[in-house]
Amino acid sequence: MDLDKKITYVTRPIVPSINDFIPLVEELFASGQLTNKGKNHELLEIKLKALLKASNCLLFNNGTSALLCALKAFDFPIGSEIITTPWTFAATPHCISWNGFSPVFCDIEKNTFCIDSSKIENMITKRTRAILGVHVYGFPCNVIEIERIAKKYNLKVIYDAAHAFTTEINGKGIGTYGDISMFSFHATKLFNTLEGGALTYNDGSLQKKVNNLRNFGICSEESVEDVGINGKMNELQAIVGLLNLKLIDEEKRKRKILKEFYDKSFSNVKGIRIPKMPQNTSHSYQYYTIIVEDEFPCSRDKIYDNLKNKNIFARKYFFPMCADYECYKDLPSSRPENLPVANDIKDRILCLPFYGDLDVTTANRIIKIIEKLKNE
Amino acid sequence: MDLDKKITYVTRPIVPSINDFIPLVEELFASGQLTNKGKNHELLEIKLKALLKASNCLLFNNGTSALLCALKAFDFPIGSEIITTPWTFAATPHCISWNGFSPVFCDIEKNTFCIDSSKIENMITKRTRAILGVHVYGFPCNVIEIERIAKKYNLKVIYDAAHAFTTEINGKGIGTYGDISMFSFHATKLFNTLEGGALTYNDGSLQKKVNNLRNFGICSEESVEDVGINGKMNELQAIVGLLNLKLIDEEKRKRKILKEFYDKSFSNVKGIRIPKMPQNTSHSYQYYTIIVEDEFPCSRDKIYDNLKNKNIFARKYFFPMCADYECYKDLPSSRPENLPVANDIKDRILCLPFYGDLDVTTANRIIKIIEKLKNE
Repeated sequence: MDLDKKITYVTRPIVPSINDFIPLVEELFASGQLTNKGKNHELLEIKLKALLKASNCLLFNNGTSALLCALKAFDFPIGSEIITTPWTFAATPHCISWNGFSPVFCDIEKNTFCIDSSKIENMITKRTRAILGVHVYGFPCNVIEIERIAKKYNLKVIYDAAHAFTTEINGKGIGTYGDISMFSFHATKLFNTLEGGALTYNDGSLQKKVNNLRNFGICSEESVEDVGINGKMNELQAIVGLLNLKLIDEEKRKRKILKEFYDKSFSNVKGIRIPKMPQNTSHSYQYYTIIVEDEFPCSRDKIYDNLKNKNIFARKYFFPMCADYECYKDLPSSRPENLPVANDIKDRILCLPFYGDLDVTTANRIIKIIEKLKNE
Repeated sequence: MDLDKKITYVTRPIVPSINDFIPLVEELFASGQLTNKGKNHELLEIKLKALLKASNCLLFNNGTSALLCALKAFDFPIGSEIITTPWTFAATPHCISWNGFSPVFCDIEKNTFCIDSSKIENMITKRTRAILGVHVYGFPCNVIEIERIAKKYNLKVIYDAAHAFTTEINGKGIGTYGDISMFSFHATKLFNTLEGGALTYNDGSLQKKVNNLRNFGICSEESVEDVGINGKMNELQAIVGLLNLKLIDEEKRKRKILKEFYDKSFSNVKGIRIPKMPQNTSHSYQYYTIIVEDEFPCSRDKIYDNLKNKNIFARKYFFPMCADYECYKDLPSSRPENLPVANDIKDRILCLPFYGDLDVTTANRIIKIIEKLKNE
């Protein structure tokens, strides 16, 4: 086979074996309960709560509806400001905006790409109600410092942990930091339910509110209290989740080997920086990112194009960055002088193909293509 | 078997045969594309567009996210008033509210339970931006009169057609009336994708906007224009949809027979009124409703309780009604004197078990239980 014709994407989802899947679907179809907190949904919720070491966990149909509800849970007034990061997927600022709040972009740290906690206090105004941090690529925000700031200014802390499934800081589930954390189970994630998501939180008194927001505000058969939407995960998604849960240890094991292979290969390539996970934090193995520094003889875009020419689709993730979107570029906090690190990183970062079944031949080709550019 | 122990719910979803389902899932799992406008998604969208006789049709993960996006598509200012009906599922007013608009409840017609178009003009203020009608139980709103009013006052018209799948008025798909119509494919609906929904609309220039709202505002790989959410239907839902589409003619045929059986049986029961579909409108066979008039010797609630005692779960649909929810009861338009018909109907209406596989023994028992109450 002509290797150049083989198409490689940045990720590939784990899927259950069809033989494990069929009997559960047969049982589901016979039961007639296809959604609305079915048997598989309830079981998956319990298993995820344990795996994420969370006090409370509620499933959603996707991470975005989960985050939409998380931001709605505190009854912030319309027009509230939420300090967040421009270095995230579109869903993060969009959930702020859709709820009638304003995203305020704070610059990011050079090493973790997370919101730079040393710059948060400068962005706080009397309209600020929350900090929405993103554990991007699974790197943890500075949760200790963010907690200190939030307490000082009486702000809520919400985390977008879409990339940080099973990440732990000092042995504690990352979803136990802050007031609410959102996880995503989209097909591009380490653990997937095709589309899906969850919220975790410590304060059990949020349970009723979050559940209402997820299910039309329905408290009981005869009572609707809150304005809620439909965030319900259906039973087929839950079945895929239950089966995929059994596969993630193996998937992480394989990704760890691939990461070590990439790490070792790039350690000799001057100008390619590999971001390091803090020592107290376990890796989510969600993405493999490289930073193309000035010492490297060509640009990130040239690496991307050279890979693409060989049908290897790396991802300029995030490009464009949120502060450059048409709908956010005119915000005062979107000005480049407010976001120097993010604006530097946006032309340097590249996510390489990274998933358990990526074959060693392809991984090696990726490295060779980049090494070759070094020598040109 | 003790008949009283057999549990009967108000509906039961159609499901594909497992033998048809497996090969499509095998192909899906092998493909690695589990969502994001996959092959099955695209095919289902095309088939539904044809079936609904719509000019444009976009799939969603559920009807609520579809309606949320429909209401967002016209960039109404925050605080806009949307005239709607209190006689609908919670999702209708909640989608108005979540977008930062105010629902204004207009009373309903006695025969169709839809918004009373003769009362709409009285509710219009300078903040009114749209009329959101609901084709409740598949009965059509007065689409002609609503169109006249909308033109006169320069309002948009959005229809919640969750109950009206494949309904046609004068041979035209019901989703071709108004500016945008929402369909629901929840498990309780005639046609289901477990959870799911769609928007239809005539004006092709809405396509880009609605698509953006459904998919994070992403226009292209390098451009994000609008504030959007995640309304994407995944591939397993789409596969179920493709297979269920083949079953709906048969399901409707069976429901038609059941409807005729109920109709005939209740025609002799004084005080039980059966609402009639207008002659120019085809039936969606979504629900079977009865109205318990004063002539009947006991209340709707007593009928409900008697059925429930025999493990037959009819549904007081809608109870509570939206104007009585905790979150809406203090609106000026929620006052009982503004909604005399809705307040009368709310204690009289009952949806009886209604689905293709309801056995004749159970249908007969339901009728006998009600007839017996007549004679008590």
